[in-house]
Order: sequence, then structure tokens, then C-alpha cells
Amino acid sequence: MTLLIACRKIKKDGFADGLRALDASLDVRIWPDAGDLAGIRYALVWKPPEGVLARLPGLRVIFSIGAGVDNVLSDPDLPDVPLVRFVDPNLTMRMSEYVCLHVLMHHRRMRDYGELQSQAQWKEFLPQPGANELRVGVMGLGVLGLDAVEKLRMLGYQLAGWSRSQKQIDGIECFAGDEGLKPFLARTDILVCLLPHTPGTEGMLNAALISGLAQDGPLPGPVLINAGRGKLQVEADILKSLDDGGLWAASLDVFEEEPLPPASPLWAHRQVIITPHNASISDDMAVCRYVANQIARHERGEPLENVVDLSQGY
Amino acid sequence: MTLLIACRKIKKDGFADGLRALDASLDVRIWPDAGDLAGIRYALVWKPPEGVLARLPGLRVIFSIGAGVDNVLSDPDLPDVPLVRFVDPNLTMRMSEYVCLHVLMHHRRMRDYGELQSQAQWKEFLPQPGANELRVGVMGLGVLGLDAVEKLRMLGYQLAGWSRSQKQIDGIECFAGDEGLKPFLARTDILVCLLPHTPGTEGMLNAALISGLAQDGPLPGPVLINAGRGKLQVEADILKSLDDGGLWAASLDVFEEEPLPPASPLWAHRQVIITPHNASISDDMAVCRYVANQIARHERGEPLENVVDLSQGY
Repeated sequence: MTLLIACRKIKKDGFADGLRALDASLDVRIWPDAGDLAGIRYALVWKPPEGVLARLPGLRVIFSIGAGVDNVLSDPDLPDVPLVRFVDPNLTMRMSEYVCLHVLMHHRRMRDYGELQSQAQWKEFLPQPGANELRVGVMGLGVLGLDAVEKLRMLGYQLAGWSRSQKQIDGIECFAGDEGLKPFLARTDILVCLLPHTPGTEGMLNAALISGLAQDGPLPGPVLINAGRGKLQVEADILKSLDDGGLWAASLDVFEEEPLPPASPLWAHRQVIITPHNASISDDMAVCRYVANQIARHERGEPLENVVDLSQGY
Repeated sequence: MTLLIACRKIKKDGFADGLRALDASLDVRIWPDAGDLAGIRYALVWKPPEGVLARLPGLRVIFSIGAGVDNVLSDPDLPDVPLVRFVDPNLTMRMSEYVCLHVLMHHRRMRDYGELQSQAQWKEFLPQPGANELRVGVMGLGVLGLDAVEKLRMLGYQLAGWSRSQKQIDGIECFAGDEGLKPFLARTDILVCLLPHTPGTEGMLNAALISGLAQDGPLPGPVLINAGRGKLQVEADILKSLDDGGLWAASLDVFEEEPLPPASPLWAHRQVIITPHNASISDDMAVCRYVANQIARHERGEPLENVVDLSQGY
């Protein structure tokens, strides 16, 4: 069996070595050293060079290295074979680390205390409500969102969730769809976005959405945390809201353009915490184990797991 | 019934107003406007002026505003009446917020990413292990320590605890006493100290202890987080360990001298996160409810809760 690794912008050798170690019968090739294209049955991809996948007549399954598959769907010539996204407990744990960390950093005002520290100033009493006084809202209630909701709730926060279709989560108020968005935002002090990038979510984190967040919360203003995809956010609107007080602070792990251009005013904004799209990075060996396991299932005639619904984009 | 509020360095009016609102029969006075000393039955204190409590012949109970009672025990003329420390779910939640936040900040290298942000530098791959690869050790397994252990475990960390006397916690490796300290430190990448200040813990966080921490962990070196009491730490040793690599980073909420003097080199140390002893601040109204409730119990002849064992100091 032959697998082709076709990725841009990331290192590929680790995946090749890992897959070979896990399945000695697998003939692993790295694009553009692909050999006979007709023999390639599986592809492991991240931002695959456009059109490459369409040139593989024997292709059975495409595996995305990320949880999001917008990196694959952007190929206009994507062949009609199952696309499997990466789902892994490690990826989920890492994302919840990021979410809890950034909610706590804003809640406990670490930017302000960091500034006070740099001035050697001791000042105990910046308003810092208890977690149980803060309303966190999580957009996106898939595997990542559910885990983040559980962990934030355990830290004491008041949680609610929003998703495109209605979900039921024990003890969590779940809002859904367009009609659920307004009341969800109105009760949210800290908004956490874990949505995928689809035509329906593109540009969603804009001025209109931000202006719907709770303005009566116990922090100086609402907080936006986006670890979904950069295409969801309108950075000009976020900056404007930060400057006019509609937003108090933000943590952004993803950006309209990545890497974030050095000229972006987000870098220097006092109330913005930037991380370089590494909230949750797929662990190379975990990806290899996942793919080897799915290939074995497929070869035994068992169904693939976590196949993307192309009509929804996730 | 008369209650005297005797505090230094904190505002007292909130406690007086709160207690009066909760129990109209309570005659609340604030030192030094104490009136007839013989009639005072209860005292609510934080760093009480020395000798004041000894001048109250009718005193039945002393309530400490903090979870730690070193602020009271430092009075050389402390009368022999029950001393009750403040225990409150809110105080516990706040401390666990602090602990989870600071463990996550070091683990996810927020100081490093903050510096990269200030230089507008996009750099994805600083080593950042998963929570499940990091061994956190919590010293002090009272109400605060237990809650922190549970929440850190839920975030994915490998947990162990240390306490003076042996404890049993489901699923957590518990070390105890002098003989347990060495193996506890040797398996610990991030040390969280929540111990009280007693003669046995004073100066405990010193060079010898730090050198016993794991040096083979997945971060660049061990991390120390102290939210117990400042007298536990030897700041000269911490600074030396940070500079010679024995310690990679630290979060300190408490200090040998508070406020931390402006001349302390801790303020400017790149790998130290300073907060002004506000990891967990007693909520005024929660203190009032707690004290009013305990007074009512005592007046009904029921036992007081959370009475300090003076032989242990907590």
C-alpha cells in the first residue's frame, strides 16, 4: 500500500518516519517525490499543493493533519473521496489548556499585573471577580468545545454554548442557530470561539457580533478569545472595538493572514494576547498512530471515523 | 453581644457594615474606638495590634480574616481562647484559579510568547509539552491543596501531593514528612506551594529544596509557584537558582517582606511572575456571613468550626 504525504509549510519527515515505524508494509512517499501516481491509495495532507490530489486515480482516503479541514477544502480540484479530519485526545487536551489559560489570564488581569510588575508597583485591588461571577460562552460544541466547556465549568465559571444546530449538554445552557446568537451573546462576558471555517462562519466575529456581548459584566468590558480559524474574524472590527471600549481585551491564536504580518497593529495592542496558531498543535506521532489505525480499519472493510460532511465543512 | 474589629493595613468599614446588616443585635466596634473592653465577646482580626486582644477579659472567640493565621499568632500576648480561621468555598475557588493560571502560564510559556509578541515575531515551536507529560507537585493538602490537585488533574497534569502527615487521595500519589520530601521533589517539574507559615515551614523553599526538583522534565527547567506565605521562601536562593539554571521560572504571590520592596531584583526578573499577595483574597461579605454564622452556632452552644490547633499553627 502506498501513502503520499502532500503538505506545504510544515515538516514532513516526522510523519514519514512515524508511519513507516508503525506499519512496515506502508510505502510512504513525500510530494513531489511521488513515484507512480496510479498506485497511491492514501494521502496525508496539510494545505496540499492545489491539484495534486486530483492527479491520484487510485486515491481512497484523504487524511487532514488538523482538526479543521479548511486547509484541504481550499483545493478547487479536490477529488470526491472520503476526507477524514484528525481527532485526538491530545489535540483536545491542548486546546482546553489554551482556552482555560486565556480565560484565566483575562479574568485575573495578568496583562495589568504584568505592567504593574514592570513598574515595580504593588497594587492588590484591581477588580477581579470570582470565576462564578463570570459568564463564559463557547461557540462551537464539537469535541473541542465540549471539553473546554467541561473544564471551564469545573474552574467555577458560568457556562453557555452556541452551535449551528441545537445540542444538549447536561447543566449547560445551549443556544443554537441565528435566533440563538443574540441571547447567547447578551449573557456572555468572555466569548471563546472554536468554530470551524466554513462559508457560514467566515467573517462572523465582526463589529455586529462584538456589540452584542454583555456590557454589564464584572470585568471592564467583554473579552474575545479566538482559537478557531482566522478567517472567522474581522481584525479591523476587533481593533476598533478594543479602541472604542466595545471590547476590553482579546486573545487571538489565529489570523486573517498567517503568519500575522509584522505591520499588524494587533502585535502592539496592549490588550491583545497573540499566539502563533499553536493553541493546539497536532502531535506528529499521534497523527501517525491515528492514520495507521484508520488505514488498518479501512483495509479490514470497517468504516472510517471522523469523515467530514462536505455539505457542512466539518 | 459585642464584636471588636481589630485590624492593621486593611479597610474595616466593609466588615462592620456587613456584620451589622447580617445581625442587628451585634454591637460592632472598630479598634481603637472600642468602648468598654470588658463587654467584648468576639474579635475579628487581621494583623491585630499587638496586646489588644490580651486586654479583653470577656473574649470568647477570635476570628481570623484569612485562611492563614500567622497574622494572629505573631501577637506575643495572644489570649488562650479559640482561634477560628476563615474557610470558604470562594477562597478555595480563587486559589485554584491562581494555581491553574500560573501552572498553565509557565507550561504554555506565556512569558516567552509575550516577549515574541513585543517583537512582532511569529514562532510556533517553542517546546511546549502536553499537560499529561508534566508532573505537578502540590505542597499542602488541606482544603486549598485538595481543590487545586483536583482541578490540575482535570486539566491533564500528572499530580502528586506532599503534606506533613500522610494523606490518602484517590488516584493521587501522596508523599509525607521529611522522608517523603526527596522522592516527591525528584518527580516534580512544577512545584506549587500552598503550605501555611509555621516554625516547621519557615525558610523551607530554599536552595536545598530547589536543587531536589526534577531536572529531566520536558520544560527548560523546574518551576516554583508559591501562594502559601512569603516566610516560607528564601528569596536570595530563588534568585540564585533562577540565574544558575536550577530553576527555570517562578510565580510568587507572597514575599519575605510585603509589599515587596521596590528595590527587590524579583520585580525585574524575566522569568518571575509577581502578584501582590492577591492569589485569593477573602471576600468581605463572605467573611461576614461566615463570622455571623459561627457566632450564632456558638451562642446556641454548638461547636465552632475550623478552630486552629495551636500546636500545629493551622
